[in-house]
Amino acid sequence: MAGIYIFMTLALKCLSKPIHNIQGDSLIMKLIVEAITLKLKTPFRIAHGTSVTRDSVLVHVGDGVGEGSIMPYYDYTQADVVAYLQNLNLDTLLGDDPLALEEALDRLPPGPGPALNAIDTALHDFWAKQLGYPLYRLWGLNPKQAPPTSITIGISENEDELRKRVRAVEGFPILKLKLGASDLKADEAIVRVAREETDACLCVDANSAWSVEQAAHIIPRLAAYDLLFIEQPLPRSDIQDWHRLRPLLPDNMPPLIADESAQQAGDILALAGGADGINIKLTKAGGLREARRMITLARSLGMQVMLGCSVESSVGITAAAHLAPMVDFADLDGNLDVANDPYTGVRMEKGYLHLPQKPGLGVTRLSDRELA
Amino acid sequence: MAGIYIFMTLALKCLSKPIHNIQGDSLIMKLIVEAITLKLKTPFRIAHGTSVTRDSVLVHVGDGVGEGSIMPYYDYTQADVVAYLQNLNLDTLLGDDPLALEEALDRLPPGPGPALNAIDTALHDFWAKQLGYPLYRLWGLNPKQAPPTSITIGISENEDELRKRVRAVEGFPILKLKLGASDLKADEAIVRVAREETDACLCVDANSAWSVEQAAHIIPRLAAYDLLFIEQPLPRSDIQDWHRLRPLLPDNMPPLIADESAQQAGDILALAGGADGINIKLTKAGGLREARRMITLARSLGMQVMLGCSVESSVGITAAAHLAPMVDFADLDGNLDVANDPYTGVRMEKGYLHLPQKPGLGVTRLSDRELA
Repeated sequence: MAGIYIFMTLALKCLSKPIHNIQGDSLIMKLIVEAITLKLKTPFRIAHGTSVTRDSVLVHVGDGVGEGSIMPYYDYTQADVVAYLQNLNLDTLLGDDPLALEEALDRLPPGPGPALNAIDTALHDFWAKQLGYPLYRLWGLNPKQAPPTSITIGISENEDELRKRVRAVEGFPILKLKLGASDLKADEAIVRVAREETDACLCVDANSAWSVEQAAHIIPRLAAYDLLFIEQPLPRSDIQDWHRLRPLLPDNMPPLIADESAQQAGDILALAGGADGINIKLTKAGGLREARRMITLARSLGMQVMLGCSVESSVGITAAAHLAPMVDFADLDGNLDVANDPYTGVRMEKGYLHLPQKPGLGVTRLSDRELA
Repeated sequence: MAGIYIFMTLALKCLSKPIHNIQGDSLIMKLIVEAITLKLKTPFRIAHGTSVTRDSVLVHVGDGVGEGSIMPYYDYTQADVVAYLQNLNLDTLLGDDPLALEEALDRLPPGPGPALNAIDTALHDFWAKQLGYPLYRLWGLNPKQAPPTSITIGISENEDELRKRVRAVEGFPILKLKLGASDLKADEAIVRVAREETDACLCVDANSAWSVEQAAHIIPRLAAYDLLFIEQPLPRSDIQDWHRLRPLLPDNMPPLIADESAQQAGDILALAGGADGINIKLTKAGGLREARRMITLARSLGMQVMLGCSVESSVGITAAAHLAPMVDFADLDGNLDVANDPYTGVRMEKGYLHLPQKPGLGVTRLSDRELA
């Protein structure tokens, strides 16, 4: 069953001079763009809608690879991302020093987040492979410091279904419940039912579903079920809503984490004092460098940091996992539901992340036979 | 003439287990603190006073070295810095993974800036040597991107002396004039005389000498001499002064750079909108990691970044030089006036910085004979 994912070589550009990797082997530098469709093992329902497949784009730079996953509720398509990446010129990008990663990243033209994420990650992977170390090592991080990752429970059609799903992830330390199903009663019922089924840590993600007034009403009720955090209670449209909500809430509520509202560095400044933390996703931030900048900025403002994902292959999830030792909360389960993940990388064992020890991201491409 | 600098081994602590460097050689891990006195070739006068020597502290961690220079107009002494470093326990600091640099830095107790800078730099040097690369390489930087460094002209006793000093640095692309001598007329005269003597870029540093009203009066007059930037026009005492000054100035003034006012990340947030940029010094920031964070924060706020120094040896100057490709303005001449610099490192050629290519900082200790 080769071809379980759609493989399209859309661009092939060669550097005039081959470069040598750390072992002294000659490396032919190409930039190859690959549009893929990830098939979900089970349909995934959140407040924004239900998915059975998700689009993604891989880009290869020499022996480096990066992914830009397409989130269906943002303002770009897979074709936009492919077009951006196809237009890159590797000669211009790498200049006269292919190991000057920051300079290459500075040369990237503005573009959609997933496109920037794909090329940023591929350049990081290429760079770290050239230097001969795993990425986390080059950032001075200890992978043992990564918090356990939550496992996400999409919105279920009925209570029995939900109970079954919660029981199916027994042993995981943190469960993230998607809310914003239909009304506040339904949302509270989801949390109540999950709490009846498990002693695990629970957190919730409303995916922008509530108004300020609804959030002020339901957050204290949900807090009674002992939640680790509450993600994106409010719509993205008006960042001031976060500051309106704050005085309406009692003290000692679970931290409020901004996801859709926290796109760029400027958003983080505007959220400080309203949100307690931000959820950074590589495909939203536009790559590892911007994600690290956002972490620094959030920390300077005394905010907590969560590292999230969308549905993506092991390339994107492994890239994020290298950053996990820097954050408070990790939610990196986006590859687990993919039936046709073309790579292996970070291994997740009941919520605990095990990073590959190989140079770069440390991901490995599966053969067509392995994928079948 | 051995002993031209005061060498005091003040602490010697051994890790129970030796660790191995990248070449597989066994490395005995010690933490050695060395208090040194740097002798100036010529007395250095700025608004805060005149110096003929400056104190500094070196710390050695395995084969890594770092420096914390003591600025005479801050709130700590060489003894404070030595005491902090002596109390560090290397076993606790490095934990079970001596390459997890971030974790080691996280374990440092709060302390004076120079002490934190010394140990932070030594840990960076040690780490980069273990990995086998120059520090700038591990940050993905291209050393060619470093701006030329300015050369500082202290306050002269008279006009002839000043003219001689300006002529003595002919060929340097940027001259930084220390102001805050006696009165505004004297300050303007310094800039006028320097401009008569040279076509080089000029910038000025008032070292907190002016009130808001004085700054509002003199800045437009000085701007007529075409200045690259104006550093710390205002006292450190009230950060709001920067916001009071701004509306009193015409448009298109040279950028105002905060030095004494920009100590911590919180200061940068408070300065945004008032100052156009910040001057980061490692010994003020407390090391390379904090300096990089401050750069990120300043950039997020749309501010310019200058990298400064105090009088220090080639250890401290070389550490800062590794960061130079990230900044707009460099002022890294603090080792040039030192008669007994115990190290060689970054080489400065008429304002242009040449970083060593060796792993880590790339600094080399001079033998007593070489120093003599």
